[in-house]
Amino acid sequence: MSRLVDARLEKLEIKLPIPAAPVANYVPFVVTGNLVFVSGQGAVGPNGLVYLGRVGDGISLEDGQKSARMCALNLIAQVKVACGGDLDRVVRCVRLGGFVNCTDEFTDQPKVINGASDLMVDVFGDAGRHARTAVGVNVLPLGLSVEVDGVFEIS
Amino acid sequence: MSRLVDARLEKLEIKLPIPAAPVANYVPFVVTGNLVFVSGQGAVGPNGLVYLGRVGDGISLEDGQKSARMCALNLIAQVKVACGGDLDRVVRCVRLGGFVNCTDEFTDQPKVINGASDLMVDVFGDAGRHARTAVGVNVLPLGLSVEVDGVFEIS
Amino acid sequence: MSRLVDARLEKLEIKLPIPAAPVANYVPFVVTGNLVFVSGQGAVGPNGLVYLGRVGDGISLEDGQKSARMCALNLIAQVKVACGGDLDRVVRCVRLGGFVNCTDEFTDQPKVINGASDLMVDVFGDAGRHARTAVGVNVLPLGLSVEVDGVFEIS
Repeated sequence: MSRLVDARLEKLEIKLPIPAAPVANYVPFVVTGNLVFVSGQGAVGPNGLVYLGRVGDGISLEDGQKSARMCALNLIAQVKVACGGDLDRVVRCVRLGGFVNCTDEFTDQPKVINGASDLMVDVFGDAGRHARTAVGVNVLPLGLSVEVDGVFEIS
Repeated sequence: MSRLVDARLEKLEIKLPIPAAPVANYVPFVVTGNLVFVSGQGAVGPNGLVYLGRVGDGISLEDGQKSARMCALNLIAQVKVACGGDLDRVVRCVRLGGFVNCTDEFTDQPKVINGASDLMVDVFGDAGRHARTAVGVNVLPLGLSVEVDGVFEIS
Repeated sequence: MSRLVDARLEKLEIKLPIPAAPVANYVPFVVTGNLVFVSGQGAVGPNGLVYLGRVGDGISLEDGQKSARMCALNLIAQVKVACGGDLDRVVRCVRLGGFVNCTDEFTDQPKVINGASDLMVDVFGDAGRHARTAVGVNVLPLGLSVEVDGVFEIS
């Protein structure tokens, strides 16, 4: 039996990253009841962190969006592990929390975090439509430009 | 049958705003089990965003509190939709997350977010007493002075 | 019957603080289903707030970690109340949200929040391993250097 979400990932030519290991004494996700709480994710490429810097000062809106999209890919990669490999068990992306490392003048955090939100809908369809909070912060771990965490419902 | 919370709103002379549409590709709330996760809300009036700016620099503590109160009104307006119009289905306001756009020197975030917390208790009574996290940030979407998200338990 | 977590606390020579009262109109925690949402906690000692200031400017990494550890002690103290005094009812520390009041250049938020994460694992063992989000912010309530909130599953 083919899996629907895997098929959609293939059609979108998306290859999920290897789930990133936490940089500290915690775990990438915790399952409680039907909910999966996923730790804050950054943009990690095959060769390490990418899009490091501050949006509005060195990092453009477009790069911020790409960074957010990579955070979302990492979230999905973690959820796939939580689902024992079967992303069709994702009932809903419940909530995303998006933090944008930006200058005091930058106010397009929603557009940045759209990079993550759009991917969720691309991958999960209506089940990818989530509640969301996007805010600016003065700095993020290791100089990440974007960090996104998530809550998912799984079956 | 009269509805208790609606009656309380009327007594408080509170007219809920029209639920604000998200400014990006996400939804205002997601229901999972008995929980409603509501997206971050700002102070939106009939003519658009209000109280734009930074608390401690242009926005006073009092205006910050009014801004937080309007965030809470928008949260309640969204929850009302989640409840199919019947706010008596709200079992508990579980948690509010409050973000205050403020100067580096401003440390009265709790007093600002009280504008939201007080309203929850006014409207829902003991069911409005919530866990809360209030922090400062250097900037918020579209220049909002306050953003508040919430988790509610409904029956 | 001796309680396992209490015994571990004793072995670690940890005396839980008196649960701190909220500085505003909200409650320290809300229980919904099997989940406890705990309000954001700061470092409160017997004589009031400690480690006030900004990490990277007055507050060292080490002091930030001690501050985070005290936040975690306060979280556990609140959860103990939520459990009617019996910390063995804690099934899992589900999630910690860590906010570090820091300079724009400080990027070791994960190391700071480890002060909280390590304590959870010390006290609860594997049940203390949690999902986590750590971010920097430009300022925190009352000048706290660290604020940590949490979600716990209890039986």
